[in-house]
Amino acid sequence: MYEGPVQDLIDELGRLPGVGPKSAQRIAFHLLAAEPADIARLQDALQRVKEGVVFCEVCGNVSEETQCRICRDARRDSTVVCVVEEPKDVVAVERTREFKGRYHVLGGALDPLSGVGPDQLRIRQLLARLGAADGGAEISEIIIATDPNTEGEATATYLVRMLRDFPGLTVTRLASGLPMGGDLEFADELTLGRALSGRRAM
Amino acid sequence: MYEGPVQDLIDELGRLPGVGPKSAQRIAFHLLAAEPADIARLQDALQRVKEGVVFCEVCGNVSEETQCRICRDARRDSTVVCVVEEPKDVVAVERTREFKGRYHVLGGALDPLSGVGPDQLRIRQLLARLGAADGGAEISEIIIATDPNTEGEATATYLVRMLRDFPGLTVTRLASGLPMGGDLEFADELTLGRALSGRRAM
Repeated sequence: MYEGPVQDLIDELGRLPGVGPKSAQRIAFHLLAAEPADIARLQDALQRVKEGVVFCEVCGNVSEETQCRICRDARRDSTVVCVVEEPKDVVAVERTREFKGRYHVLGGALDPLSGVGPDQLRIRQLLARLGAADGGAEISEIIIATDPNTEGEATATYLVRMLRDFPGLTVTRLASGLPMGGDLEFADELTLGRALSGRRAM
Repeated sequence: MYEGPVQDLIDELGRLPGVGPKSAQRIAFHLLAAEPADIARLQDALQRVKEGVVFCEVCGNVSEETQCRICRDARRDSTVVCVVEEPKDVVAVERTREFKGRYHVLGGALDPLSGVGPDQLRIRQLLARLGAADGGAEISEIIIATDPNTEGEATATYLVRMLRDFPGLTVTRLASGLPMGGDLEFADELTLGRALSGRRAM
């Protein structure tokens, strides 16, 4: 539709997830009118991500140093580890302000059809953390917080099988059920079924 | 929320129009997993836009050469010029396949509160195009296709006043009325009022 650099930029922006042709055009014309310094900051941020983001050597979260902020924080409870799929899940759990333990980021979920087996995830590193019970803070609980979808459930099942032989270790899973603020009549049958089977005495 | 380069990228992406915090996070993690070559292509596209996009010396549209594709096309009717605010409006009119004339891109609309007066728009260049009646193809009609909002209407009114003294020149304005596929009961009173006053014999 356009000529030259503008169309190239629209094409590249349109390849990003969630950016349709209209948004790409809007962003391109915004950048066309932007200060060169604003574009340079975006380029710079891209460059640093391209050069490689550091992952925490302990939990696998994105990090600025060899260990992430949470793993360095001595006030966090080292006996509880919450296992999540992606760094953004760490942010989601942190936002609840309910969890004061540590994390372990798997880097995805089991998905054999896409070629993601146990070796592609950071499961070995999780077992190593459990094995390194060097007297200090022994891990007493693993909370499996993978997504409540097919891949996440398969990963949870796999992890439970790997972890049940560790003595003195409790393995838990996030509760499934009706979302807060939701409407019973609009809940899908799977969610409502989970809510029923997971009902609690009150 | 995140540390280091990832958060910087999320912040920069979040500054783009129509990209909220959730989209910015999604795009950032997409780029984190992308091939360096994909990021390099986006950086390159940004670089070329930053270095300056060429505008057609005749109509002001974005262009790859000194004159844009439409201005170079000898088959287009040089006697009719459609005046639009932005390059994206050229694309919108082209998409109708109804118009075979030339364009003139103003580069915005009159908006005194934002400091956009007649001198900030390419109005002088439009008058020059009309004045350069060098025997060849004299412009016989100017179609004013500015947006049907306050600024666009003000610009249209201003242009009509500037253009009415040119001998033999017809100045027209895009019709206002009900959008096709629309619903009369949901039309706002201004649109319905325009549709009424602009009613046509059939």
